[in-house]
Amino acid sequence: MTPLQLDPDRLLPPDPTRRAVARRLHAAVADLPVISPHGHVPAGWLAHDVPFADPTSLLLTPDHYATRLLHSHGVDLAHLGVGRGPLSPEASRAAFRTLCEHWPVYRGTPVRYWLQVQFADLFGITVRPSAETADEIYDRIAATLQTPQFRPRALFERFGVEVLATTDDPCDDLADHATLAADPTWTGRVLPTFRPDRYLEVGAEGWAGHADRLAEVAGVDTGDLPGFLDAMQRRREHFRAHGAVSADHSHADVRAERLPDAEAAELFARAREGSGNPAGATALRRHLLWEMARMSAQDGLVMTLHPGVARSHHGPTQRAFGADVGADVPLPGDFTRALRPLLQDFGTDPGFQLVLFTLDETTLSREIAPLAGFYPSVWVGAPWWFLDAPEATTRHRAAVTETAGFGKTSGFIDDTRAFCSIPARHDMARRLDAAYLSTLVTDGRLEEDEATETIVDIVTVNPRKAFRL
Amino acid sequence: MTPLQLDPDRLLPPDPTRRAVARRLHAAVADLPVISPHGHVPAGWLAHDVPFADPTSLLLTPDHYATRLLHSHGVDLAHLGVGRGPLSPEASRAAFRTLCEHWPVYRGTPVRYWLQVQFADLFGITVRPSAETADEIYDRIAATLQTPQFRPRALFERFGVEVLATTDDPCDDLADHATLAADPTWTGRVLPTFRPDRYLEVGAEGWAGHADRLAEVAGVDTGDLPGFLDAMQRRREHFRAHGAVSADHSHADVRAERLPDAEAAELFARAREGSGNPAGATALRRHLLWEMARMSAQDGLVMTLHPGVARSHHGPTQRAFGADVGADVPLPGDFTRALRPLLQDFGTDPGFQLVLFTLDETTLSREIAPLAGFYPSVWVGAPWWFLDAPEATTRHRAAVTETAGFGKTSGFIDDTRAFCSIPARHDMARRLDAAYLSTLVTDGRLEEDEATETIVDIVTVNPRKAFRL
Amino acid sequence: MTPLQLDPDRLLPPDPTRRAVARRLHAAVADLPVISPHGHVPAGWLAHDVPFADPTSLLLTPDHYATRLLHSHGVDLAHLGVGRGPLSPEASRAAFRTLCEHWPVYRGTPVRYWLQVQFADLFGITVRPSAETADEIYDRIAATLQTPQFRPRALFERFGVEVLATTDDPCDDLADHATLAADPTWTGRVLPTFRPDRYLEVGAEGWAGHADRLAEVAGVDTGDLPGFLDAMQRRREHFRAHGAVSADHSHADVRAERLPDAEAAELFARAREGSGNPAGATALRRHLLWEMARMSAQDGLVMTLHPGVARSHHGPTQRAFGADVGADVPLPGDFTRALRPLLQDFGTDPGFQLVLFTLDETTLSREIAPLAGFYPSVWVGAPWWFLDAPEATTRHRAAVTETAGFGKTSGFIDDTRAFCSIPARHDMARRLDAAYLSTLVTDGRLEEDEATETIVDIVTVNPRKAFRL
Repeated sequence: MTPLQLDPDRLLPPDPTRRAVARRLHAAVADLPVISPHGHVPAGWLAHDVPFADPTSLLLTPDHYATRLLHSHGVDLAHLGVGRGPLSPEASRAAFRTLCEHWPVYRGTPVRYWLQVQFADLFGITVRPSAETADEIYDRIAATLQTPQFRPRALFERFGVEVLATTDDPCDDLADHATLAADPTWTGRVLPTFRPDRYLEVGAEGWAGHADRLAEVAGVDTGDLPGFLDAMQRRREHFRAHGAVSADHSHADVRAERLPDAEAAELFARAREGSGNPAGATALRRHLLWEMARMSAQDGLVMTLHPGVARSHHGPTQRAFGADVGADVPLPGDFTRALRPLLQDFGTDPGFQLVLFTLDETTLSREIAPLAGFYPSVWVGAPWWFLDAPEATTRHRAAVTETAGFGKTSGFIDDTRAFCSIPARHDMARRLDAAYLSTLVTDGRLEEDEATETIVDIVTVNPRKAFRL
Repeated sequence: MTPLQLDPDRLLPPDPTRRAVARRLHAAVADLPVISPHGHVPAGWLAHDVPFADPTSLLLTPDHYATRLLHSHGVDLAHLGVGRGPLSPEASRAAFRTLCEHWPVYRGTPVRYWLQVQFADLFGITVRPSAETADEIYDRIAATLQTPQFRPRALFERFGVEVLATTDDPCDDLADHATLAADPTWTGRVLPTFRPDRYLEVGAEGWAGHADRLAEVAGVDTGDLPGFLDAMQRRREHFRAHGAVSADHSHADVRAERLPDAEAAELFARAREGSGNPAGATALRRHLLWEMARMSAQDGLVMTLHPGVARSHHGPTQRAFGADVGADVPLPGDFTRALRPLLQDFGTDPGFQLVLFTLDETTLSREIAPLAGFYPSVWVGAPWWFLDAPEATTRHRAAVTETAGFGKTSGFIDDTRAFCSIPARHDMARRLDAAYLSTLVTDGRLEEDEATETIVDIVTVNPRKAFRL
Repeated sequence: MTPLQLDPDRLLPPDPTRRAVARRLHAAVADLPVISPHGHVPAGWLAHDVPFADPTSLLLTPDHYATRLLHSHGVDLAHLGVGRGPLSPEASRAAFRTLCEHWPVYRGTPVRYWLQVQFADLFGITVRPSAETADEIYDRIAATLQTPQFRPRALFERFGVEVLATTDDPCDDLADHATLAADPTWTGRVLPTFRPDRYLEVGAEGWAGHADRLAEVAGVDTGDLPGFLDAMQRRREHFRAHGAVSADHSHADVRAERLPDAEAAELFARAREGSGNPAGATALRRHLLWEMARMSAQDGLVMTLHPGVARSHHGPTQRAFGADVGADVPLPGDFTRALRPLLQDFGTDPGFQLVLFTLDETTLSREIAPLAGFYPSVWVGAPWWFLDAPEATTRHRAAVTETAGFGKTSGFIDDTRAFCSIPARHDMARRLDAAYLSTLVTDGRLEEDEATETIVDIVTVNPRKAFRL
């Protein structure tokens, strides 16, 4: 059986001089707490502290990074339990075996790295995944998940999580967050994030229903635009009262532009009637995003933008398995032109703070870093989604640092629902920053004491400032 | 006289730890056969096995990589024999001397690398090209080309070519391929590739003539759309009967979208009359490309797309020297949006296979890798044309691997008419993959046995799967 | 107090084999003269040789690279003296203290690198900038600036400047250039550059006034298009008579396309009346740029293009502080399509020479290098503005060399008004080229004697050829 090993120097540069510096830099932050200001772990896991069910439903089924690659190699998503109810024990074991059989598929990808670290470090697996070892690994993880040390709260503590932000619908009552806050035995910090996308997509199917639900939950009539905005404002207050520090937005583009009041009201009325057209829906969505920015400048919720994805690129897959199953494909980005109206109004407003994420790497050196290198309100978001991997993360630092420095970057964002991968993800980011900074030191651009201070800031100060924690 | 030398460790990383790993990885594939599923060597060279004429017409005149750089430094293309008939012995020698005099022009380019390897390894040249050494090198190569060991078939064997695909017009009778297949003394595999671009560009000058010719060759009236498609289908069958495994397409963009039958028929009728307009021609071209995809899903010819070049950017050069003389300039690419209609219909069709090439590197991490990392039908094509060079190839692996892994990449494509450069090109790709994989090994992302298996797969398994060989 | 040190091997690669090669390559060019064919130092500084006033107005206030990063961290531009008259001694000292306090903000940026080299090498500062050391550093620089060795002419000589080009308005009388030329005690070469942007932007506020002024200065009526072009031609002659070798152009895009005479005349007439529309203004600007190219082909002024910036992205900042204060943000570029009309007409004209700069890195491998690798007239401009930094410069070489070689690149352009940073900037470029070339040598792509010749060419031959010096 081939052993599964973790190189203690993984991701650090091979050159001995650089490696020595990188090791010291990594050591300076290796044990610092995890600050996770944007992610998708359900608060309920921690509120109710129920043991995780089985290896597949924890590690494979919900992780579209892992399932899409199997799909690209011909595995049916149904076999992996995607978009279905709970798997039977046999189906769960079979899906996990498929993962192990396809272990070579993940070579060179971050999925391989994260799974390997979880297997080796967290679950104590000592053999390489394969058809032969699949059952052994499955049984070991399944047994481990039943122990008290692997209950969600125990893991939260073990992982050293200082802050964990969830992502939530504006109509969510945030009961799980309230439960945690009210629990004297719980000392962790779990914050909701206001994510109103579907309420802004006025041209999408089902929007009227969302607006109705918003009215009901906020206790305000959303039949006209002022009422709708008032309802939004109230839900933001609700989130702030439960600890929220940011509002997250993901649309096809980032344009946010105010319309004349009458035009906005008119478009809203048409949308409410269901008689609008696509151009009007887009204009109104951009107006509503501008209103979100205005509210952010007032209530202090940091605005984060995650744009530019063709969601559910393959219609038949969406119809069979739903959204968020790995069929989203990025699009070219535009920040310089699209953000101009918004930044005219709020770019130097001390109440406003904006973190920009992108899946289009070309915008990093060309648009995002120059914006963050001028506007006090703008921050460079960490590498996101397809780009939170070693090579892409290194390219990201190289693309933004020379224009925006380190101090206007957000710190690492794990953006994950794969709870057990959180330590591996944050540690990967720390290793890559250690590697990047070690180059600056060894080629004489930075002194080592400055590099040490910088990496500690990246892990601690930057996310606290960027997200007003 | 300055010697011409080949570093046995060329393109491998300088760091000793990485170099040792990279050497072992390269050694594992250095002597494996060459699989060349897309290229431009004429089948007639092998069918008739006529000796190559002279150094210039073999190595310089037809290679627009080499001639365009001389042109950019002020050399007249006419002096190099571009777009003209055969050169006189004096003109051939003079053109070759110009190449040698301009040897410094190629520093840092792959042309320099490929020529150097051919000169040193194949022709036994031991002096650096220059004005002083030009005649000596010319004479040595000219003499060598007259020996039996340098006839095309002998070189084919010496190069270890297992499969060589040519690129052919749908109306080609493929007589040379048939000659080879019928020759009991010939054991190589030389496959045609179906390349119907000009038959799809219904708005281009001369299209009606191509459609007429197609009718004649296929024995089917191409006066209406069903007839035209039937003729195409028949020619594909002809190609398949001669061993073709793929159909190659190169248009300004990759959009392939079905029109309603009546609209397509109407546009076709107008094109046939010569009364169409540009927008209609584009819509019909995209419809015809969709039909090509439909046929691919049925007959199994792998579809390959090579889009996004402004062909013959300089009109006066085209008028004086023809097409394909180095004046083609790339354009921005679009895959996510443009391929959506096609992939709705065939993206998960088990009969359909699509290999995507690009000259716009920004599409690699943003669009192509995410598509190949979800759709079972989609493969990442190797770095192509301007990008089949050391730095660009390394960027290509770094851009796609983290999202699509190694298993959905096509393997190396030489895409060349420069027959003698084929071994140098494939070996370059192997060295660069060895270098890339050695980084994964030395920074702890991959075990060396996995890297070895991966590089062997890239050279053997990947092209066989991607091209259904 | 933490010392301020300069690593003599800064920016050279850490691997010992590569470092040894890179050191030798850098040594071969370290002491060669500075050729600066495009920049923004005022000729008056040298003509009048007045001592520099104070550290802040020399090193901080006019350098938007330095001020924009402080602004992005919340410092008011007014506090730094931006867009205001001279600072009081107290305000100057306070602004400089702000710079020193924010020293960590510049980590990883070229501003840090350039300031550090100036502080250590030029001003003999031995302590790291900080709140504590700010006054000491300020006093030391202030005192030094009063010594004869720090007068502009003394520094010009000390820096080894062989050629320095300024950037000038077409209506400038070039009196300072004339003063220098007439001064028998002055042997330096200071050349004006023709920069007619505002005269081509016919739709911009104030254009009519510029056209009137042009008429007055040129002594030609600019009331119609032939007169306007005649006036331009005369001013170009005036510049050529004062030593100009190039004409520089910076518009939103690079399209230059001839209109029919009547249409151009009509659009010009409307612009003159103030009755034009934006589309007409753009078409006329592109026609005028085409006319500039035509004149360049005739009078031999090298045409340089610096396109693609959203100038003064933040309106309120522009209104308060003016233009060029660090609020310019790049846009996506387009060269292949946009330059086609121009290059049809002048691409192979031996009188025409064109240097292309970009802030959109994606255009380097995709468009600019392929254009420069075919057209004899086209040169790849050096990394510009946001991109004249170590990582970006390395990416630039890697993106263009494999397609265009070294011989069609312009040599380094400092493009700066920060006079004292000129040696540090040119030396940075030399170190980075040494590092790049050392890789080619150590991985067997180039012999060291060729690399040495190449780096010497880049520093000496390339700019002389590209700018016809």
